[in-house]
Amino acid sequence: MQVTFLGTSGAIPTIERNPSAILLRRDGERFLFDVGEGTQRQMMRYSTGFDITAIFLTHLHGDHILGLPGLLQTLESTERAAPLTIYTPIKTGENITQLLAATETNPTYSVSVQEVNPGEIAVDHDEYRIQAFETNHQTQSVGYAFIETERKGRFDRERAEELGVPVGPKFQQLHEGRSIELDDGTVIQPDQVVGDPRPGRRIVYTGDTRPSDITVSVAMDADLLIHEAMFTQESTDRAWQTGHSTSQEAAEIARRADVDRLALTHVSSRYGNDTSEIESEARESTDAEVLVPDDGTSLTIPYPDQD
Amino acid sequence: MQVTFLGTSGAIPTIERNPSAILLRRDGERFLFDVGEGTQRQMMRYSTGFDITAIFLTHLHGDHILGLPGLLQTLESTERAAPLTIYTPIKTGENITQLLAATETNPTYSVSVQEVNPGEIAVDHDEYRIQAFETNHQTQSVGYAFIETERKGRFDRERAEELGVPVGPKFQQLHEGRSIELDDGTVIQPDQVVGDPRPGRRIVYTGDTRPSDITVSVAMDADLLIHEAMFTQESTDRAWQTGHSTSQEAAEIARRADVDRLALTHVSSRYGNDTSEIESEARESTDAEVLVPDDGTSLTIPYPDQD
Repeated sequence: MQVTFLGTSGAIPTIERNPSAILLRRDGERFLFDVGEGTQRQMMRYSTGFDITAIFLTHLHGDHILGLPGLLQTLESTERAAPLTIYTPIKTGENITQLLAATETNPTYSVSVQEVNPGEIAVDHDEYRIQAFETNHQTQSVGYAFIETERKGRFDRERAEELGVPVGPKFQQLHEGRSIELDDGTVIQPDQVVGDPRPGRRIVYTGDTRPSDITVSVAMDADLLIHEAMFTQESTDRAWQTGHSTSQEAAEIARRADVDRLALTHVSSRYGNDTSEIESEARESTDAEVLVPDDGTSLTIPYPDQD
Repeated sequence: MQVTFLGTSGAIPTIERNPSAILLRRDGERFLFDVGEGTQRQMMRYSTGFDITAIFLTHLHGDHILGLPGLLQTLESTERAAPLTIYTPIKTGENITQLLAATETNPTYSVSVQEVNPGEIAVDHDEYRIQAFETNHQTQSVGYAFIETERKGRFDRERAEELGVPVGPKFQQLHEGRSIELDDGTVIQPDQVVGDPRPGRRIVYTGDTRPSDITVSVAMDADLLIHEAMFTQESTDRAWQTGHSTSQEAAEIARRADVDRLALTHVSSRYGNDTSEIESEARESTDAEVLVPDDGTSLTIPYPDQD
């Protein structure tokens, strides 16, 4: 899986940072989280491809959605035929419909807008689910967790052969959890040749939010937590007033959830290009790998057992 | 006066070209024509300043307006107090109002949307007027002409002194077109010391359009004609079908209007970075200086008598 930061600015963009958008790619699928103004050009710049599987909006502030009509209009020119679903927090679906109507965004491919409740599974796939969770940003808002399904344990082929299992369909039966019987009547149980199930990967994106216990539980043991960090500690009051987080607060969430990596985004334009304080203040509170991605930063998320 | 091209792409942006927007600066005033997605960041990139006097929309296709909500939201953060008027073709005002409503763009400064008919003077200032004119683009559309008022002729101070006019208020009376009487009874007429009125500058922007006789008359003797040129001659049929112009057609308009400079913009993304054919085909039809501006290109428009 690969996560590409298409836009990392706070509410106001800068020359270097576009408004919010994050692309997650997995096995040829492309999931877009938030669509700030200019996202379509960022996708061109960073050669991500335009074949989007689905779009997920965390909330409807302009810096998270104003790139939506332009992107959908440009997708039309790619001769897209596949339907496209836009997931958005409850009570905001009508606003998205209005935005598309007001901009005469009526592509020939089908667009559906689907509201998601906090806790609801937006996409339920064999190999993963994408689940909304409650956030706290003074407006209808959710975060999204991308959670891979547990994979089967490793099959120990060498051990199976030692036990006399003939190469062939019995291997698969064992790997799928069924016991088999050898010609001599010996019964082999799956756990003799199959390791423990292997956890999938977990990536959590908060969107804009105050720090929250719910994020801790959703992000528990996550491979990557993408948490907003609009301010440094000095502006703790301002973060509280505006429904945002300081990087120290985001790092505290990461520490409590024991995540591997913490990506801090949505940094206020007041810090210009100098995010060193955002980063260093976070490092004081968590042992996770901390980074403040630039626009275009791509992170590869390996399986935990590939480490 | 200075014209800065903030976005020069066709309907679909490219890595190098943002959708349409043009800023005209004159004596501290800033007039923005069209506001494609991403315009606010282009203004940052090219350091134009955000103190916009008024906005003029040629038509409501996405590539000309989708940067409007984001720009208006960002203007709020500049602590703008001055009211802002958005001029837009007749029958499109309600759509702009809907776009601002759907994006919750309710800035604290006042925003008014004013429809303009083709031929109507949108802004009438002592020193210039900004006038809409009819274009032909399969939707409600207008172009805009920025026309400076004729300035008084040059005052020939040396000649006035030779004629015995005393230095002082009589100089001004003559320059303003009133005759004066010297102490000895001699009457001096203004045309003895004041040259012919000097023409102001004229800049014409078509927006998207088929070539049109009306553009010829509006752009007559213009210092700068900014004409769309989406296609090369090979795609003449396609230009006709989509309500656009070829560069050859744009150049023909420039030739008939005898303009000094022709800037070709809104070039289709199919040409990538190679606009040489767009340019060379235009050069075959007009003696005007022809250019295909890049994003960020700025042109200074001198007074004709400064040449």
